[in-house]
Amino acid sequence: MNLELFFNPKSVAIVGASHTPGKIGYAILDDLLKGNFKGNVYPVNPDTTPILNKAVYPSVKAIPSEIDLAIIAVPAVAVPKVLEECVRKKINGVIIISGGFSEIGEEGKKLEEKCKKIIKGKKTRVIGPNCIGIFDPSTDLDTLFLTEERMGRPKKGSIAFISQSGAVGSTILDWLSGEHIGISKFISYGNAMDINEADLLEYLANDITTNVIAVYLEGIKSDGRSFIETLKKTVRKKPVVVLKAGKTEKGSKAAVSHTASLAGDAIIYSAVFNQFGAIEASDWTELFDFCKAFSMQPLPKGNNLLIVTDGGGFGVLATDEAERQGIKLEEPSKTIKKVLSKNLPSYVSLHNPIDLTGDVTAERYNVVMENCIKQYDGIIAIVLFQVPLLEETIVDRLVEMKKYGKPILCCASGGTFTEKLSDRLEANGIPVYPTPERAVKSFSAMIKYSRVV
Amino acid sequence: MNLELFFNPKSVAIVGASHTPGKIGYAILDDLLKGNFKGNVYPVNPDTTPILNKAVYPSVKAIPSEIDLAIIAVPAVAVPKVLEECVRKKINGVIIISGGFSEIGEEGKKLEEKCKKIIKGKKTRVIGPNCIGIFDPSTDLDTLFLTEERMGRPKKGSIAFISQSGAVGSTILDWLSGEHIGISKFISYGNAMDINEADLLEYLANDITTNVIAVYLEGIKSDGRSFIETLKKTVRKKPVVVLKAGKTEKGSKAAVSHTASLAGDAIIYSAVFNQFGAIEASDWTELFDFCKAFSMQPLPKGNNLLIVTDGGGFGVLATDEAERQGIKLEEPSKTIKKVLSKNLPSYVSLHNPIDLTGDVTAERYNVVMENCIKQYDGIIAIVLFQVPLLEETIVDRLVEMKKYGKPILCCASGGTFTEKLSDRLEANGIPVYPTPERAVKSFSAMIKYSRVV
Repeated sequence: MNLELFFNPKSVAIVGASHTPGKIGYAILDDLLKGNFKGNVYPVNPDTTPILNKAVYPSVKAIPSEIDLAIIAVPAVAVPKVLEECVRKKINGVIIISGGFSEIGEEGKKLEEKCKKIIKGKKTRVIGPNCIGIFDPSTDLDTLFLTEERMGRPKKGSIAFISQSGAVGSTILDWLSGEHIGISKFISYGNAMDINEADLLEYLANDITTNVIAVYLEGIKSDGRSFIETLKKTVRKKPVVVLKAGKTEKGSKAAVSHTASLAGDAIIYSAVFNQFGAIEASDWTELFDFCKAFSMQPLPKGNNLLIVTDGGGFGVLATDEAERQGIKLEEPSKTIKKVLSKNLPSYVSLHNPIDLTGDVTAERYNVVMENCIKQYDGIIAIVLFQVPLLEETIVDRLVEMKKYGKPILCCASGGTFTEKLSDRLEANGIPVYPTPERAVKSFSAMIKYSRVV
Repeated sequence: MNLELFFNPKSVAIVGASHTPGKIGYAILDDLLKGNFKGNVYPVNPDTTPILNKAVYPSVKAIPSEIDLAIIAVPAVAVPKVLEECVRKKINGVIIISGGFSEIGEEGKKLEEKCKKIIKGKKTRVIGPNCIGIFDPSTDLDTLFLTEERMGRPKKGSIAFISQSGAVGSTILDWLSGEHIGISKFISYGNAMDINEADLLEYLANDITTNVIAVYLEGIKSDGRSFIETLKKTVRKKPVVVLKAGKTEKGSKAAVSHTASLAGDAIIYSAVFNQFGAIEASDWTELFDFCKAFSMQPLPKGNNLLIVTDGGGFGVLATDEAERQGIKLEEPSKTIKKVLSKNLPSYVSLHNPIDLTGDVTAERYNVVMENCIKQYDGIIAIVLFQVPLLEETIVDRLVEMKKYGKPILCCASGGTFTEKLSDRLEANGIPVYPTPERAVKSFSAMIKYSRVV
């Protein structure tokens, strides 16, 4: 399925464009006009007084040119009529932002069925209803109706993020705006009356701007078989990381009144993800922990990990997590130990983790990493920047390690100074995690995926 | 045991005070002189050239006045001699910063035994060796030897934090410096040759500046029986939250070479914590998630929680976690539902979670919280600040709820705007968590502790 015109339309109609600042139909228009979106924008409203100095059309029919994408933000009851007009005008992409469909019960369900019938057998494809739509940092198509003052937009990157929930999506995007994690495309698809998670996976599997796919899912809207088939094909091309909500009985009930999803049995979902190569995350921070690793680093070729640290306690916590994840922490070979012991103080413990202790220097990390990299499939460097003798060049030492083509993950946490150096690391493609557990779990996710492909 | 003079000494000797900026013995002196510490400070070094314009004494014996506390930062082999002098000078408090004792093996173990013999039967009590000592924001006693440029100090508050590991301690303190979480006292106790975790718990149980105790533990250094006895007594007075490292076989081995701890069997530790009322955390962020809830909010009287949200997806995730934690999510009573339905739009789902949806206002939260608080033991308000119509007065509405004496926790996440409002909430005693799961787990920790007392 080619959904290209949803992300890069030449012309967009905003049906329900409003004259009132603060309203959804105003915010969408305002966002599109203020940003760098290159397409033509046509506001539609029965009241044809210009909005933001733009001519307003009384209906889509009245727009004097072809339209690639219509964004509908009118009350639910008015949606079927607008959708019919879109079909008639041969608009092939429609995003229905409006809520008030199957998520509110019987009445809404009927309305949604009506919409489905309208597009049946037609070329018009629909995202939504009950969604916030699309944000594409490449084309600056942005239907999110949340002002930039309250919700920052993330930079361009290689993670595609699809979310059944608009609020989960926008909250995470806002958080991403302060991070060194860029996205390729964001799609909130809500009730999925037409385009569902399987369609989006299929599209993103072939999207060259996307290297990893993050999914927030309450329940699948596609049928099970086609979901599995698409998932299998997609993971062969790029990692898919899933946060599944509604995993308990009560959570599942809550999901019904949210996106009308039958969240189904958690065990079945986890089994499917596991068997067909999707990586499951336990909360939204983990979802992006994993995506960050996948988007910044190469995959490990095996599960033999070296942990090097300047804080013994963090080394212990990392070891605990590595053992829980079944990751191998081989000791350095005798030959390597010989070299290390010549170049490191006697009190440095040459096991795994290698504890370089609080008087560590960048050179010590370098000695360890350069000599050990051959033996291992990846390195987690725990770098507590608070220690007095560690030079800021440690950042360069870590970044240089990328030349070996093996995954290098970092764990660091603290205040202003640490944030500054962590920022520099992430800007240069070394992912940084605040706890040793999160670093190790991310490495483990990479190992799991490396076994799929 | 009265450890008061460790935190509020009238006079401090720094043995190993150095003339060289960057060295530990220089940094400690510099920190004490620069801060607001009110006691007298006496640098000790065989080279009596003044340091930072302070007269230097060749030995503790040579100091012409009484000394409450000696901080020792000389090479391990020189420690026993210094310690003997301290005992002779009747210095009752000694912190040995130096490493190179039982954590490095047999030779160090002998040295540590020698030190133990020196203080046997004497009034001199020792914290350390192999530690970073104490930070007390009330007296500004600060032995941490990490410059404020690299490691911020947290503000004054009611959480005591004891850490077997210096690096874990300083990393977390640095992180706390950017948060609205204050501490009463920090103690890094390293190898615990004399004062151990049980002594510290006993002291902090009676410390009026402390309301919650956070513990990072690799293995207990006190004997099991007295640890359990002290723990039992302590939790009757205030919550004790523990992060136990070395819970796996390999992690346990790593702990030996770190603080010479036999980390022991994870199952036994967890069983002890559970039976005797300590709350266990799974990583350091959770350790302070829980402490934040305890320090800011009253305990719940039961386990009936109301979740109110403006983002359905976060409501689903919170429900999942509540069910995993065995927390009751009762529906609002019929009477309350009647009142709510009169005052809220028809599409608001009046179950639990109550989903106020994306066009939420502060007034809607207010209607829900004011009407429901009677039925519940606490509220988690998920407030996604990105939505357009939510007024900043939501902060005041949430803070006002404190008048009911029931715990109010908040979940919010995002960028600059969200951070600003979250800051205001935490400055006013409403803890904010970035994921719904972390908010619910913190509420669960409060329920667990409420059953102990």
